[in-house]
Amino acid sequence: MLAAMSPNAALIIIGNEILSGRTQDKNAAYIAQKLQERGIRLMEIRVVPDDEAKIIATVNELRARFDYIFTTGGIGPTHDDITATCIAKAFGLAFGHHPQALDILQKHYGDQLTEARARMAMMPLNAKLIPNPVSAAPGFIVENVYVMAGVPKIMQAMFDHVVAGLRTGPALVTRSVFCAIPESVLAPGLSALQDEFADVEIGSYPHFQIGDIGVSIVARGTDAARVETVAQRVFALMQSMGGTPRWE
Amino acid sequence: MLAAMSPNAALIIIGNEILSGRTQDKNAAYIAQKLQERGIRLMEIRVVPDDEAKIIATVNELRARFDYIFTTGGIGPTHDDITATCIAKAFGLAFGHHPQALDILQKHYGDQLTEARARMAMMPLNAKLIPNPVSAAPGFIVENVYVMAGVPKIMQAMFDHVVAGLRTGPALVTRSVFCAIPESVLAPGLSALQDEFADVEIGSYPHFQIGDIGVSIVARGTDAARVETVAQRVFALMQSMGGTPRWE
Repeated sequence: MLAAMSPNAALIIIGNEILSGRTQDKNAAYIAQKLQERGIRLMEIRVVPDDEAKIIATVNELRARFDYIFTTGGIGPTHDDITATCIAKAFGLAFGHHPQALDILQKHYGDQLTEARARMAMMPLNAKLIPNPVSAAPGFIVENVYVMAGVPKIMQAMFDHVVAGLRTGPALVTRSVFCAIPESVLAPGLSALQDEFADVEIGSYPHFQIGDIGVSIVARGTDAARVETVAQRVFALMQSMGGTPRWE
Repeated sequence: MLAAMSPNAALIIIGNEILSGRTQDKNAAYIAQKLQERGIRLMEIRVVPDDEAKIIATVNELRARFDYIFTTGGIGPTHDDITATCIAKAFGLAFGHHPQALDILQKHYGDQLTEARARMAMMPLNAKLIPNPVSAAPGFIVENVYVMAGVPKIMQAMFDHVVAGLRTGPALVTRSVFCAIPESVLAPGLSALQDEFADVEIGSYPHFQIGDIGVSIVARGTDAARVETVAQRVFALMQSMGGTPRWE
């Protein structure tokens, strides 16, 4: 489909609060968009509970299959924050107070550095740190696994820091057309177009809100000229079916 | 941890639009909350692309491990809607125009039933249908796999229909306390409390918004009296650390 030379990635969201429906995840969309801008393909997202065996198995399965693994959640100071120890076990690495991380916490908390807070410096001892400009306690990197906080504001700062250092792929170009007609009337034309342009991904996203029945067709690929050609063809297809398309 | 007699479930979200960051998933939180109300444990969520091999492998892995599998997305009329054929292949079932589904579409579309629209009746021939009161095209059930639309309004109607027929577990009771103090000052007390009440799950969720630094502690379990006891102990712990807790 799209360029095979693009690096790929998977995201592991760690936390019972997502699986119980208490918290709506906001990190996946942020990470997905930023990766897309850099031509890195997000291939899979998994949400797993605060369960050691499950986290270890998921990390080990995915890190062998994808170029980059990002994790969010479970690196705070409380008993339910078990991500760091799971990462150490997944890689079979020595785990303890990371000297550089402990130093950061000592500077931040001074004589308020309790044992619980110092626990946030416990991680694989050879990990590379990810700065946390919001609340000091760092994330960390082991090989291709990037371990970040779950709080969106902190996660975003950590991700923005590491994303600059990732290998990039050909940038993905997207062009989107909306039309207030049912997607089914476009289906045969879209299918033929997809067959003709195998290197451009054509997605069809119906809307079913009252007063806004219609469909968005999104063309996506690394060759801007071909994406544009596909989008123009979709536009013309919509017109030929009696619709009034508009660019999104 | 929580009652082993509870049925469990996994959710598979199918769609490139989530992985590209174009669309923010809204279905997971809805499904998670409704399952929790019925005492069904959502154990894992996966987001996978519109890729046949990947969908089939994911369905087959998860359906063997969990009581219920829900899928969202990929059952429309366009070329990128491949969920139904993937489910048939995952189970090794005959695939074609499901007579009852075709009948529903014929009644809905009349002489507007094009080949593309009739494609929405293609599914495993022995599937049990899930009604779609919004746009007619049904979802379907094969064994323990529930295949639903991705459009939230349609997904919710389909899910509300099927959820009534699921086996339920002991209802999960939740009690939540907020306090404007850092979670790290509660960490030792919470850890001791978790050790004392192994059957109550204690989650700690920090807030880092400006003007709203603090933490929510959530106690969750099937024994309402023990959940209440834990919550009261958390409330007292917060007071003992100089905080002013409030129930959420």
